[in-house]
Amino acid sequence: MKNIAVLGITGSIGNSTIAVIREHPDKFNITLATAHHNTELLFEYAHEFGIKHLVITGSKLPAAPPPGSIIYHGEKELLSLISELDLDIVLNAIAGSAGLLSSITTIESGIDLALANKESLVLAGHLIKNKLRSSKSRVLPVDSEHSAVFQCLEGHQPSEISKIILTASGGPFRDLPLDQFTNITLDKALKHPTWTMGTKVTIDSATMMNKALEVIEAHWLFDTEYDKIEAIMHPQSIIHSFVEFADGSIMAQLSNPTMKLPVLYALSYPQHIPSDLIRTSILDLPQMNFRPLTPERYPLYFLAIEAGKTGGLLPTIINAVNEAAISLFLNHKISFNDIYKLIDQACQTENNISHPDIDTIINTNLSMHTKYLTNYQNYL
Amino acid sequence: MKNIAVLGITGSIGNSTIAVIREHPDKFNITLATAHHNTELLFEYAHEFGIKHLVITGSKLPAAPPPGSIIYHGEKELLSLISELDLDIVLNAIAGSAGLLSSITTIESGIDLALANKESLVLAGHLIKNKLRSSKSRVLPVDSEHSAVFQCLEGHQPSEISKIILTASGGPFRDLPLDQFTNITLDKALKHPTWTMGTKVTIDSATMMNKALEVIEAHWLFDTEYDKIEAIMHPQSIIHSFVEFADGSIMAQLSNPTMKLPVLYALSYPQHIPSDLIRTSILDLPQMNFRPLTPERYPLYFLAIEAGKTGGLLPTIINAVNEAAISLFLNHKISFNDIYKLIDQACQTENNISHPDIDTIINTNLSMHTKYLTNYQNYL
Repeated sequence: MKNIAVLGITGSIGNSTIAVIREHPDKFNITLATAHHNTELLFEYAHEFGIKHLVITGSKLPAAPPPGSIIYHGEKELLSLISELDLDIVLNAIAGSAGLLSSITTIESGIDLALANKESLVLAGHLIKNKLRSSKSRVLPVDSEHSAVFQCLEGHQPSEISKIILTASGGPFRDLPLDQFTNITLDKALKHPTWTMGTKVTIDSATMMNKALEVIEAHWLFDTEYDKIEAIMHPQSIIHSFVEFADGSIMAQLSNPTMKLPVLYALSYPQHIPSDLIRTSILDLPQMNFRPLTPERYPLYFLAIEAGKTGGLLPTIINAVNEAAISLFLNHKISFNDIYKLIDQACQTENNISHPDIDTIINTNLSMHTKYLTNYQNYL
Repeated sequence: MKNIAVLGITGSIGNSTIAVIREHPDKFNITLATAHHNTELLFEYAHEFGIKHLVITGSKLPAAPPPGSIIYHGEKELLSLISELDLDIVLNAIAGSAGLLSSITTIESGIDLALANKESLVLAGHLIKNKLRSSKSRVLPVDSEHSAVFQCLEGHQPSEISKIILTASGGPFRDLPLDQFTNITLDKALKHPTWTMGTKVTIDSATMMNKALEVIEAHWLFDTEYDKIEAIMHPQSIIHSFVEFADGSIMAQLSNPTMKLPVLYALSYPQHIPSDLIRTSILDLPQMNFRPLTPERYPLYFLAIEAGKTGGLLPTIINAVNEAAISLFLNHKISFNDIYKLIDQACQTENNISHPDIDTIINTNLSMHTKYLTNYQNYL
């Protein structure tokens, strides 16, 4: 029986995690769970799974906690719990940069980190890699692409990699004529063709920012240089990624699209345990195809990769500006194309520093977010 | 530097092995090589690679051996050399049942066995598995399908397997109307659509006997029950096999068709080492598709799998009769469809025994081969 903390249990990854744990009550026990606002669902899960420690990170809404549960508030109490409780795995599915400190505390506490929060590595990959060197923690990717790469690499070293090829569905605008990008509405951007995900990730799939963040994440997760990582479009989202090895052998991991499988594998690692949550019939697969990502269609992907390569504080800056820009787009303040423009502007004008410490990262993240959220009109 | 024995160096797998060793003279040293008849090519390789020990298993043709090489004759001397020389790997690419004793001696000598001779496991899987329990040998598959499964399984146990799915090109008659099978000529049967291989294997691909033998081989190699192994047609021969795990995660290994990669990986295992022998561009892959094998088109596949499941001496019997039948077909004595008929006849009439010992296997193999080769007209 593994004791699990599920951070962000009420979100999309949390939902998949619940399905996994419902199927395996004999293997996984939720000891700690967090929600930002949705206390109702948090309490429902607490009741169903007998979760003792519940953290609400957002609003302090008065609500009746289930008997036997203890309620905590805010990130500080969450970090204390992570370091004090007897946990085997922390599944970090907190949305955005708010998940960073939980990842760091998990590693500092020597607990395995099932990581669905890609911002942890995008913002602080250099700090996390450093902390992992003196920790017994392992980072287990919870993301269909990185879980695929992780599975392809099993038994092998990063030095054997010739290329990591992440697949991308292409998002809702993969076939949209380029001259119609100026007319993209919020409704259209929220219609992802193959995956059902959170709002922010769905927009990131449309701009392909998501894939750039995944490339940066893969760089840190798999100790692999940027020139050995690429992304290609695979509209069917069946093959979740490829690894080409130095000898030319290519491994792929596939399944019908589901987040339950990456969650299950991170929790059950290093074993594949029996599950009926997802089955894939090879004979019934759709025709699979693969296309390059082009800068004309996905300029943000290429811009953000360059920011990743530059490193330092720049990945934090573009991530913060992207979060701000998506808020603005969701609130009908800016157009779809303005998301790119704001981030491009930030790349050109903001100061970068190398090897930032955690406080600098967190402060910059907040200040950039606020700056572009409030003064966006100055940068367009 | 690994000391390698290459048994059957003048054949198709030997040819791929030569390419691999030419690329890596710093890693692999051929200490021992064998040929059945082609002493000219054997001596050429001996000269190029400075191979000291040369075994001719077929004819004793007088020929001038390269200076520094020692010539031996016959299987008995070969087996002595395997057990006496300081070898790291024996690559067994001997054609057919003649490779059996070399495999057994390799394992008895505690040497890693790079196995391209599927008959070793088809005929004596139970004996080989038993010997492996008390040997430090590992069996490293040299076959595109089994190498793929082997790579997919890395880091995992047979108990985690839900299904092994071998791919089959379908051979030259995958699209032939069923009513034209009676008109198949030798020329047509020898035209394999995607692979260039030896004559016998090419005919086995046309009847799909090859795939049945591979299923039997996979059963022994990967400790997996027959009901968890299947084969599907994949005309492009890009994905070399799949493994579906208990949780529904599916791994695949792929590359453009080449035997060099399985040879290289068996020799370099557990590492993928840099090589330019084969590259595969995902973006340039043909449309891949997958179809079931049907009993109407490939009756021999289904018949032979049943023989594998029955076990005992029956796999030896069907393999011997198949070898005889292919000789007859190559000599225009019987039709393509008669290959199936002879094997079906043998399955129905020959006596099976369970757990045969090695002498029984070898004697039965010879007697069945002779019986059906000489008296085939009685069984049609």
